[in-house]
Amino acid sequence: MYIALDAMGGDLAPQAPVAGAVQAAREYGVSLLLVGDQEKIRQELSRNGQCESSQLAIQHASEVIEMGDSPVAALRRKRDSSLRVAFTQVKDGKAGAVVSAGNSGAVLGLAVTRLGCLPDVERPAIVTVVPALSGRTCLVDAGANVECKPVHLVQFAIMGEVYARVVRGIRSPRVGVLSNGEEDSKGTETTRAAHTVLSRLPLNYIGYIEGRELNNSGVDVAVTDGFTGNIALKTMEGFYDFTQGQLRSLFASSWRGKLAFLLLKRSFADLRASIDYDEVGGAPLLGTDGVTIIAHGSSSPKAIKNAIRVAHESLQRGVNRHITESLQRLPDLEALTADGRGRKIWSQLRQKFRPTKDAAAEAGTPAAPDKIGPPNRHDTRDETEPPEPAE
Amino acid sequence: MYIALDAMGGDLAPQAPVAGAVQAAREYGVSLLLVGDQEKIRQELSRNGQCESSQLAIQHASEVIEMGDSPVAALRRKRDSSLRVAFTQVKDGKAGAVVSAGNSGAVLGLAVTRLGCLPDVERPAIVTVVPALSGRTCLVDAGANVECKPVHLVQFAIMGEVYARVVRGIRSPRVGVLSNGEEDSKGTETTRAAHTVLSRLPLNYIGYIEGRELNNSGVDVAVTDGFTGNIALKTMEGFYDFTQGQLRSLFASSWRGKLAFLLLKRSFADLRASIDYDEVGGAPLLGTDGVTIIAHGSSSPKAIKNAIRVAHESLQRGVNRHITESLQRLPDLEALTADGRGRKIWSQLRQKFRPTKDAAAEAGTPAAPDKIGPPNRHDTRDETEPPEPAE
Repeated sequence: MYIALDAMGGDLAPQAPVAGAVQAAREYGVSLLLVGDQEKIRQELSRNGQCESSQLAIQHASEVIEMGDSPVAALRRKRDSSLRVAFTQVKDGKAGAVVSAGNSGAVLGLAVTRLGCLPDVERPAIVTVVPALSGRTCLVDAGANVECKPVHLVQFAIMGEVYARVVRGIRSPRVGVLSNGEEDSKGTETTRAAHTVLSRLPLNYIGYIEGRELNNSGVDVAVTDGFTGNIALKTMEGFYDFTQGQLRSLFASSWRGKLAFLLLKRSFADLRASIDYDEVGGAPLLGTDGVTIIAHGSSSPKAIKNAIRVAHESLQRGVNRHITESLQRLPDLEALTADGRGRKIWSQLRQKFRPTKDAAAEAGTPAAPDKIGPPNRHDTRDETEPPEPAE
Repeated sequence: MYIALDAMGGDLAPQAPVAGAVQAAREYGVSLLLVGDQEKIRQELSRNGQCESSQLAIQHASEVIEMGDSPVAALRRKRDSSLRVAFTQVKDGKAGAVVSAGNSGAVLGLAVTRLGCLPDVERPAIVTVVPALSGRTCLVDAGANVECKPVHLVQFAIMGEVYARVVRGIRSPRVGVLSNGEEDSKGTETTRAAHTVLSRLPLNYIGYIEGRELNNSGVDVAVTDGFTGNIALKTMEGFYDFTQGQLRSLFASSWRGKLAFLLLKRSFADLRASIDYDEVGGAPLLGTDGVTIIAHGSSSPKAIKNAIRVAHESLQRGVNRHITESLQRLPDLEALTADGRGRKIWSQLRQKFRPTKDAAAEAGTPAAPDKIGPPNRHDTRDETEPPEPAE
């Protein structure tokens, strides 16, 4: 299955996307459909010692959505943009995924309008993988949905859990809802309703988490609306720049600093790589009927290569099938929106999950491997309080 | 005017509060009313080479609100707590301010119930001063109000601006509303309504700011609801811990690291001090009829000393008088809540501000020094678009 790469998207296009594609084809053996101006793509391929082939195919598109274009205008006017044509490849079944470092608003808009949502998904959401003390944390939604209902947060939790488990290989991802405190009484009306439902679902739900847990490995999937998620993410980026600035002036301020910098130079490069966005390889948009990876506008070839890897893994491991299966096992989450407290949902939940539990207990076997989270977790949750989030 | 210090509040009470009080009395010449168990306070005073005096007076209180007490229970049951008695001193006119490192929920609850709000203030808000590349940024609201209406955000902006100008001495503080992007179309319904009103008020309003601007000195007052403010703040704290952890392991991992650490040890201490919470001295709660400074639960004597300094400056510079005057000059912000867009408000605004502007122009003099922001700013704003926030 081809992965369609928007060869014209991003600040460094077409050089970085094409170079990244060549690296990805070599390293992961994936087949890529490079979408954009075919002359320019051919030039870039030859600059990388390659030519058009079945593994590095070209799909011509005559227009480019610029970073400054308004997404709405871009979607309506540029009918032959590289990005739109890339999504058309997926819609037509010629490719399974789109990777783009272009205008992220346009990527979002085209993904939703061209691919549509998966069954039962109300709103697609962006997962951003942020650095943490050990491993990384999936923050969902990182900016696609500014105003959310409880049902959306619950769906983000399910989709984020599936992504962390199926693509990132975390056995039983700990899921938390971002809030202004750990107590059940904290949060907004929306987070409280989502929190109540999530604490009864067969997820490894650890409850509310605070902002300080995003980077301390206390949680694997942090769930929030796109407004708060974007602000948390940008706050991290800003604080990173701030500390970098502080360190730079510390190293430059004296001979001791300069000498220390020389001693640490190599370790700093390693440290930076561990936080490095390029390693993460873009943010998946979960919930559309196809795989979409939104890469950073300033993506390097390495970042593009890793974004292609993430697209490849998402396809190979069937992330969308897992999302659909997980959502289909849930009760009608719409009920949650109606009463705002999720009361109605309990009876539905009990009916839905009790039989599975009883059957599993009787058979003495663990539940199916693609069940959300470890089955025993749900059993204990029915009787006991959710555990406190890790400090 | 006395400053009432909750001598029993905080993880290190009564040692840290009393030691901080002794330092503040010496350094700033302020008079303090130490509220709490008089025997313990006397012991701590003598440990600091002091005894009860008119400058270091004691007000006995038999109970203590513990950090783990539920604020509601604490307020209802412990009628003779040191915190409650401290607020009573302000209510009775015996003191002008309360400083406490105790249970912050209880501080908030008692401040609102004992002191009440200033005229025209709908909701008091917490200002937290966060480190930035040069200087610091006032984040308001840092956690007092989880769900906010546009009128609240507008009031937070006014109160934050007054605090930055009057207490922190910034001549014309740049005010921004925290959002998920800089364009007017971004944000929630609530932020958009607040944004529209703020861009027409005589403030140095620079528009929407993103999370990355909180620590890069692009703004002096960042306005948000208490839910988002708390998450942004805790995200910074978490990211700080994360980078500290990374640096620690970098220094410990090799002889080069260890040597570099020895070289940098002193500079690191300076760096830490520049970010240090202790230097800031607590978060003022703005909008109540009295001065309240919420210090961190783990406040050291130095943090308490600085919190007392902030209380002293707030009293001396009449921050509450300035807030009241600024709010009284505004049109009826309630109208904003009614139509959600603030359309009605324009006509009121024009009537309210045009005469002042014309009068100032005729007289050829700058507006009164306590006017919010530079008067000319408003003149240009009526005709032109608000400038882009600084990068």
